[in-house]
Amino acid sequence: MLDFFSHIRDDLRVVEQEIAKVVQSRDSLLTQTSMHLLNAGGKRLRPAFALLAGRFYDCDKERLLPLAVALELIHMASLVHDDVVDASMTRRGIPTVKANWGNGISMHTGDYLFAKSLVLISTYKDPFIARVLADTSVKMCEGEIHQISTAYSANQTWRDYFYRIKRKTALLIAASCQLGAVAAGAPENEHRRLGRFGHHLGMAFQITDDILDMVADQRELGKPIGGDLRQGILTMPVIYSLEKSSQRERLRELVEIRDKTEAQVVEAIEIIKEAGGIHYAVAASQKYIAKAKKNLNQLPDRPVKEIFRQIADFVGIRRF
Amino acid sequence: MLDFFSHIRDDLRVVEQEIAKVVQSRDSLLTQTSMHLLNAGGKRLRPAFALLAGRFYDCDKERLLPLAVALELIHMASLVHDDVVDASMTRRGIPTVKANWGNGISMHTGDYLFAKSLVLISTYKDPFIARVLADTSVKMCEGEIHQISTAYSANQTWRDYFYRIKRKTALLIAASCQLGAVAAGAPENEHRRLGRFGHHLGMAFQITDDILDMVADQRELGKPIGGDLRQGILTMPVIYSLEKSSQRERLRELVEIRDKTEAQVVEAIEIIKEAGGIHYAVAASQKYIAKAKKNLNQLPDRPVKEIFRQIADFVGIRRF
Repeated sequence: MLDFFSHIRDDLRVVEQEIAKVVQSRDSLLTQTSMHLLNAGGKRLRPAFALLAGRFYDCDKERLLPLAVALELIHMASLVHDDVVDASMTRRGIPTVKANWGNGISMHTGDYLFAKSLVLISTYKDPFIARVLADTSVKMCEGEIHQISTAYSANQTWRDYFYRIKRKTALLIAASCQLGAVAAGAPENEHRRLGRFGHHLGMAFQITDDILDMVADQRELGKPIGGDLRQGILTMPVIYSLEKSSQRERLRELVEIRDKTEAQVVEAIEIIKEAGGIHYAVAASQKYIAKAKKNLNQLPDRPVKEIFRQIADFVGIRRF
Repeated sequence: MLDFFSHIRDDLRVVEQEIAKVVQSRDSLLTQTSMHLLNAGGKRLRPAFALLAGRFYDCDKERLLPLAVALELIHMASLVHDDVVDASMTRRGIPTVKANWGNGISMHTGDYLFAKSLVLISTYKDPFIARVLADTSVKMCEGEIHQISTAYSANQTWRDYFYRIKRKTALLIAASCQLGAVAAGAPENEHRRLGRFGHHLGMAFQITDDILDMVADQRELGKPIGGDLRQGILTMPVIYSLEKSSQRERLRELVEIRDKTEAQVVEAIEIIKEAGGIHYAVAASQKYIAKAKKNLNQLPDRPVKEIFRQIADFVGIRRF
């Protein structure tokens, strides 16, 4: 577990047990596929953010639990569905549900996890929580479809990029922070502030993900380097380099090849590094982190504020 | 439109317009795939049931609209996702989303329609509606997974069959009837009664579907005959015949063949007809219709009761 999560270690353990309990089905295959996914691990960032956001307020932990579990289920559902489209065979170092059971089972497992999250969310009387998560889910789909329909196209704009990463990543992290506060009874101006904190943190998180996909240690990352390029996903370092690199014509060619050889992936990454695409993305991520911290500063002074500050710092320097 | 829906013709037209409005996305591809599905038509049974159930009570039609639209979106979402698994290339006589745009886009279109339904449901203050639909969605996934994991297996029991059709079809029709009443402010004993009516009607509906898949006119059905057998789905006439037919060993062999020839499909249907599998299923469907009507009788006397009675009769004799 990440160090700064030690403060909520016990709560996260309860979340973990609760997910395992919630996904049990009368259908043994569904239990099996869900548990496969659960056992693959993960940082449980979204539950952690919700639990920590709740710490700004005095509230019974029990109130946060269904939300925390639901957030992870939504995230897990989106991962299984991504794997169907991506044709990924491993995630977090182990075979995907798709690799073991095929497309149909993967899709329905995702649907199942998502539906289970709704059961949990429906236990909250305040319809605001359901409303935010419904909107977020709609936009997450828009992000995924946008990613598919723009794949391998070197004509993407910055606007396309920001549209996509906001939907793919930032919105659910924003919702995690905001709704943790909502469930804990936060006043509106404060839960909105936590939502903005989460949004900026989420943008930084996705940009860092994009960077790691090009520079990380494959073992630490748990998947092959250059995956985004192979799938035709244009990330920040790529879009920057398509504008600025002296070899941008060659990069454009490489980006648009559908079945890239290993050598072509390496060549593309070299061009991007040389153009300063990685540095540019690191700086952009840092800017988002600064914005996140600015929002954090305006929240009530509680011990949890320091933990969130450490998390923000970590997102900028993480290596996996 | 079906005759007995003429009483709610205007309301159904509003539902249709509202679906078209709701699925509009900033992403033009999503709008396009959703509209493709919407334009393929459909009986809009679930919205109709919700609207009719609401007619038992004096309520503003506006209150029922989000629910009616949401029910159709959930149904449409499940159809697109079914097509991904079934490898179906046509539905309702036109190419499926999958055939035109591929698995990834189909899956995300389904996710999108489902998420849009949640946005609508979250406008209701009473969390009961969200709770029933969340439970229903979980069970619909269980039904789908069960169908995949038992495909082509001749060792299925009656229990498997009823487990599956309840989840695949009856629960959402039950929810449509019950929640239409809930949204209209019905007392608990009455909305539960409408739910039971819908459940029995839904079971009859699915059994009739199973029958039509073997005996219908292909043009009226809008898809090839014997589709269930081809996909390895064992329906009531099959399960009955596997028990009672003198040629049950041959039928067992045929059922388990994964790539059946046209001649094998025809042979299986002949064995089933000869064993009385179709007659048995017709009788079973009639029994459910009788149960549905029994529940209907105990509801308050309103003009809509007669319409629901006609619908129940129609489900037993429909040819498409």
